[in-house]
This record gives sequence, structure tokens and C-alpha cells, in this order.
Amino acid sequence: MREVAVIGAGMVKFGKYLDTSMKVIARDAVNAALSSAGMDQNKIQAAVVGNAMEGLVTGQECVRGQVVLRDMGVGGIPIINCENACASSATAFHLAWLYIASGMYDVVLALGMEKLYHVDKKKSFAAIGSAVDVELMQQMIADMNAQQEALRKEREARGEKTEKAAGAGESRSMFMDFYAAGARAHMKKYGTTKEQFGRIAVKNHRNGSLNPHAQYQEVYTLEDILNSPTVAEPLTRLMCSPIGDGAAATILCASSVAKQYTNKPVKVLASILSSGTDHTAEEEGVVTRVAKQAYEKAGVGPKDLGIIELHDASAPAELMTYEELGLCKPGEGGKMIDEGATEITGSIPVNPSGGLLAKGHPVGATGVAQICEVFWQLRNEADKRQVKNPKIGLTENGGGMVRGEAAAMSIHVLGI
Amino acid sequence: MREVAVIGAGMVKFGKYLDTSMKVIARDAVNAALSSAGMDQNKIQAAVVGNAMEGLVTGQECVRGQVVLRDMGVGGIPIINCENACASSATAFHLAWLYIASGMYDVVLALGMEKLYHVDKKKSFAAIGSAVDVELMQQMIADMNAQQEALRKEREARGEKTEKAAGAGESRSMFMDFYAAGARAHMKKYGTTKEQFGRIAVKNHRNGSLNPHAQYQEVYTLEDILNSPTVAEPLTRLMCSPIGDGAAATILCASSVAKQYTNKPVKVLASILSSGTDHTAEEEGVVTRVAKQAYEKAGVGPKDLGIIELHDASAPAELMTYEELGLCKPGEGGKMIDEGATEITGSIPVNPSGGLLAKGHPVGATGVAQICEVFWQLRNEADKRQVKNPKIGLTENGGGMVRGEAAAMSIHVLGI
Repeated sequence: MREVAVIGAGMVKFGKYLDTSMKVIARDAVNAALSSAGMDQNKIQAAVVGNAMEGLVTGQECVRGQVVLRDMGVGGIPIINCENACASSATAFHLAWLYIASGMYDVVLALGMEKLYHVDKKKSFAAIGSAVDVELMQQMIADMNAQQEALRKEREARGEKTEKAAGAGESRSMFMDFYAAGARAHMKKYGTTKEQFGRIAVKNHRNGSLNPHAQYQEVYTLEDILNSPTVAEPLTRLMCSPIGDGAAATILCASSVAKQYTNKPVKVLASILSSGTDHTAEEEGVVTRVAKQAYEKAGVGPKDLGIIELHDASAPAELMTYEELGLCKPGEGGKMIDEGATEITGSIPVNPSGGLLAKGHPVGATGVAQICEVFWQLRNEADKRQVKNPKIGLTENGGGMVRGEAAAMSIHVLGI
Repeated sequence: MREVAVIGAGMVKFGKYLDTSMKVIARDAVNAALSSAGMDQNKIQAAVVGNAMEGLVTGQECVRGQVVLRDMGVGGIPIINCENACASSATAFHLAWLYIASGMYDVVLALGMEKLYHVDKKKSFAAIGSAVDVELMQQMIADMNAQQEALRKEREARGEKTEKAAGAGESRSMFMDFYAAGARAHMKKYGTTKEQFGRIAVKNHRNGSLNPHAQYQEVYTLEDILNSPTVAEPLTRLMCSPIGDGAAATILCASSVAKQYTNKPVKVLASILSSGTDHTAEEEGVVTRVAKQAYEKAGVGPKDLGIIELHDASAPAELMTYEELGLCKPGEGGKMIDEGATEITGSIPVNPSGGLLAKGHPVGATGVAQICEVFWQLRNEADKRQVKNPKIGLTENGGGMVRGEAAAMSIHVLGI
């Protein structure tokens, strides 16, 4: 298979675009990527577009990529619409890579885009909720709300001040309940603390404040994070990724052709996509399994990484992913954040962009946006949030939940 | 790029599965394909799943492939959900082919699946309607209904008996209005007749009556076809593909590995996907352009074809596609059907399966179902509808409509 490079990246500031068409934000992201590559749009030989939920939010169920790309004059080429929930555009990037690696095309666009905001917020939550088996969803929501309520009553009985939480699926995405359950299990098993999860959020919000593309650019203290409203114990609102709109694009190119456009190509060292399995708690989970495949393919290990963008849909998810990626031993994620190892100035900076927590998480745009950040970091183009001279970067992007594990998991390793 | 073969094909009878889960029909199709390949499901190294509209019909907007495949024990592999409206599963097949052609995997599943029936038929029509730019849809529907009404008034003024048609988008898919407009233009330009369109429907319904997988297996006379209720002049109901549910699956394999499983591999000679362009009526349309690419890639011409499955979403579409594929000259499509050239016993049999008109058109399942039929025909496994000894077959599968042309167009050439 041929070596593939990323030669251009662009994105819009993630945020709230209630009155702006997807055509506009997608076009802006594509044009920014083309400009970054120094390339005209007529050089694009194929396009893969990742989007997760537009059908339920705007009614544009089909041909989402063609609607935005034909509008800007891109057509007559393969346009593929792909979806893998929160990993939709990592999947798009993977397919764009595959087109080039196979030898079929030389220049391919990978675009991720999402508009989650809707005047009726329930519509947004329903869309996010569709990333599980919807035939089982009502039962899952009922089970999780019962668990939450049992936990609250337990605390109440201990004399703690509690408030009855709004139900999952009603006032928020049920995904935060999954994350909360995982966080509680980690606390119980390893003694991880709510403060440690809070520090992840402090770091990512601080990083986001340095990123002009971030949806939220405020700096928070640990107290601010811990005192923000409870979503599902131990998660507070500032430990959860927000609803958002956005688009991100990358231009991929055969390495043999890349030098026509740039002297700073970013090589794709590994592009691995997989799905979850039925397994016991003791057996290897999907992140660890896919990370091992990616490290082997790229010929690197966790110690070689200089920058990571990972799927911090919630703060605990980031902490646990440290362990799953092999950055530390199981149970040592809390220690990593306490020691500042994953700060921009630390030994292995994680989510210098602000991550999903602060940069935002317009679902179908997230995977390509992670690639954009690693692209900029490896080229030393990340301005105030620049990590010191990274040579190898990794992105980790998971999507959906089926039978208790991520439905899709994608890990990319990039190098300069 | 490596040579790829199809080694297994399976589908469910297309029809109405209101009370059956997608998991069941998808599993049945996959198991039939595995059985045809003589292969256990643990040999599948990756899966690409085409579905167009489940988000709007059942609410399963995300991870549709994982929901059905993990349920049957397939996981831990890449599972990609792709969508290209009516060409969703031709796109899935194309990506499955690409995975193998690239050298990345040896055995890949391509699955197409769709459930369009809903107790509320408007929901089904809204889903189908989402295969255009939905921001423009309301205006398009209004324009088309106005055109229909003007045509009716014109006929009324000539003293003809007319009936006020139900509006597009209300009681039917607006796509039939697109097809009707194309048919009227063809009649005007070439003198093609409503009877000729009717004969296409007679042929495909007769073929469908020989196909146990077909949704409709009734034989109709030309009079039956012409006298069925008008949908949009000149289309009658029996000239339009019906709403339906279904699933179809194929197992693709590197040709170098295929001999482990079968001595009758069906080679993929060309797999081309493209999208429409802005062009004048005189310039080449998307079908002609993609067909030329496919013929060149496969090293064959229209004369070499022994069997074709093409996208007869309406009877006129089939007639016009004869011309676009180069089976005859522009304007001679009517002559071809009059002379019986495309009958099962003709010089170039088209849609021996019954096509979308009779076999049915569960949108996301259609592309792979076309491949299934060509696979069976090339292996002489098509029983009562078997074409005489075909060596090369072609499938043509279009999807959606953006800026006046198919949003997606896929042509595959297969050979034995």
C-alpha cells in the first residue's frame, strides 16, 4: 500500500450556527483546508464526508456530502457519505486514506461536519441518543435513571445533600450516564477521585482558551469545575463535552505527489478502524486492542508520541484513555493528571486543542478536527498552544455504544 | 491494485416486514451469503453496510451496521456505515472492493439493508424525499405540483378526461415526478411512447414472476400496466418501483484467496463510483460518463455484456439507461424494448431479476441485490430466470438528486 500524507487542514470555529446552513460551514472548512494545502478544489479526485446525525436534526438524511460539495462546485468525483457516530469523520479520513493507499486516487478530501443545535433541544438529544441500539434504548434509559435514583437515595440516607437529576434522554444525552458509570467503577477499583477528573477539565478548558477554533475559551479553576451543576455523579457539566456545530476538513495526498504542494507533509503512519466485541471486564477493551494494532503498524510505541488528541467526550474518558493507550499502567491515569504529564508543557501533551470538552464536539466533525490539530502541532503551526517540537502524534476517536462497548474505534498515527 | 472476486451472495425476499427487526432480515441475508460462500462468519475481516433512510424511518440514525452485525456475533473488525441514497449499497460494495483491492484485507462483507415501510406512509415518503437537498425541497415540490396541474389543465382544455393528482411529497415520493418529467422530455424529443415505457414494466414484472426473491411476482399485460392509476403523466403505478423492505449481502475476497472457497469466483472487473455535475442538456450525463470509465477499466464494451441489472426506479429510467449505457443510440431505447432485445431471451437481457419495478426497491439494499443477481446469473444459478450463459455482467445503481443530476452513480462490471 502506498504512503499517504496530509497536506492541508482547515476548520471553522466550533460553536452555535443555528441560522447558518451546513453548506456554509462545510465550505468554509474545505476552503481553509485547500488554502492550507495551496491547492485548487479542482484537484480533488474523491471526497469522503463524515456526518452522524443530520437526518434527525435537519431532515437531510441522504446525500449530505453531495448537497454541500456540489453547492461549492465540487462534483463529477466519488462522494461517499459515511457514518460511525462520534467517529464518523475519523472513518471518513480512514476511507480517504484507503483510496490513496490503494493507488486509486492521488488527492482526496476528508470532511467532517455536524449541526447539533436545534431550537428544540430534545431533538439534539434524540439525535445523540441514536448512537446506541434504539430498539433497546428505552429500556437502557429506564435502567440508567433507576441507577441514578438509587445512588441519590443512598447518598440521601447518608445525610448528604442531593438533588433529583433530570432523566437521561430527557434533558441530556444518555451517553454521560455511560461515562459516569465508567467513572464510578474506576473510582471504586483504583481510588481515582472526582478532583482528578476535575483536573482533566481544568487542563482542557485552559488549552481551549488558547485555541481560536474552540467553542469555549474560558479558563476555570478546579472549584469552578467541581461546583458546576451535576450531570450524573461524579460528572459535573464542565466535565462533559457540549452540544455544538462545526466542520473540519483535511486534504490527503499520495506521499509521492505531496512534494508538488508542500515541503511539510504529515505522513499517515497508521490508520486503524475497528468495532467493539463482547468481552469480560478482564479482557482487553477496544481502545487497547486498536492502539496495539496502530502502534505495530506505525512501528512506534506510546513513549514515541509527542502529541495526542483523544476522545474526551467526558473528563473521566480522557483519564481512562491514558491507561488504555498505554501512556501509563492501569489505575495510574489519576497520577498522570496530578503530575501534569499531559499538559501542553508536560511529557506527553494530551488535547492541546482543548479537546471535546472545550474545543467542542460537533459529533461528525470531531475525528477530522483531531487530525487538524495534530497536523498543525506536527508542523509547529499551533501558535499559543504549540507543543514543543512533536514528531509523532496520535488521534483516538470512538463512536456510539453497542452491547456495552464503543461501536466504532479509530486510531491514527501521524508523523513528520 | 489486487484482483477481487465475489464468492458469495444472499438476500431475503424483498417485501413488507413491518413487525420484523432489521437485525433479522440483515442476519438472514448475511447468513445466506456466507452459506453461498461456504464460509463461517469469523472469516469476515471487515464489513461495509449500506443503508439510506433508517434514521428517519426507525430512528436508528447511527451505527446501523454495528447494531445488526454485533447482534449476530460479528465484531472486533472495521464496520463502516455508508450512504448514497439509492446507491448506498453499491457504495458499500465499492468500499468492500477497495479494502481488498488495496491489499488491506482478504475477506470483506458488503451488506445493503432497508426498512421503508412504516405504519405512517408519509414517514416513508419523507425519508425518500430526503435524497435531495432538503433546504430546496419545499420549493421543488411546489414547482412540480404546479407543473403537474398545468399539464392536467392543458389536457382538460383539449377535452381529455383528467383527474387532479395528489401532490408530490404528500401521497408519493417526489422522485416519480423527476422521472415523469424526464420521460415527457424523451417522448417529445424522440417520439418515444407511453406504450414503450409500459412494455418495460411488462417485461420486468414477468421476470419478477420467475424470481422467488421478488416483492411482486405477478404477470401483467400491457393494458394492465397502462390502466393502473396515474402517478405522474406518463407514469402509471405499475411503471414505478414500490416501497419495500429488504436486505442483500455479498462476500468479497481477494482472487488469490478465493480458490480456497470456490471454483466459481465472479471477478470484479470494474468498480466505479461518481457524482453528478452541473452540465447542459447537450453535454454528457453522469451515467454515460461513468459507463465509459467502467468499460475502459474492465476492458469491455456494451457488446460484450451478457446480463445487466440497472436502476429502473421507473420504467422510463430503464429505457433511457439503455441509451446512456451505449446499448443503442440515443433515441433508440423504445425500439430496443419493442424488439425484445432486453428480454431474458434477448440479445442483452436487462433486469432478469424483475428489477426495481418487480423485485422491489428497499433503497439501501438495491445495489448489493443487483450484484447478487449478476453473481447468480454468471454462475448459472438463476433457475427459471437464467439468461443463456452470460460471461460478463454490469450493474448500474444511481442515488439521490442534487442540482438536477444523480447525486451518486455506481457502475460495476463483473465477469466469470
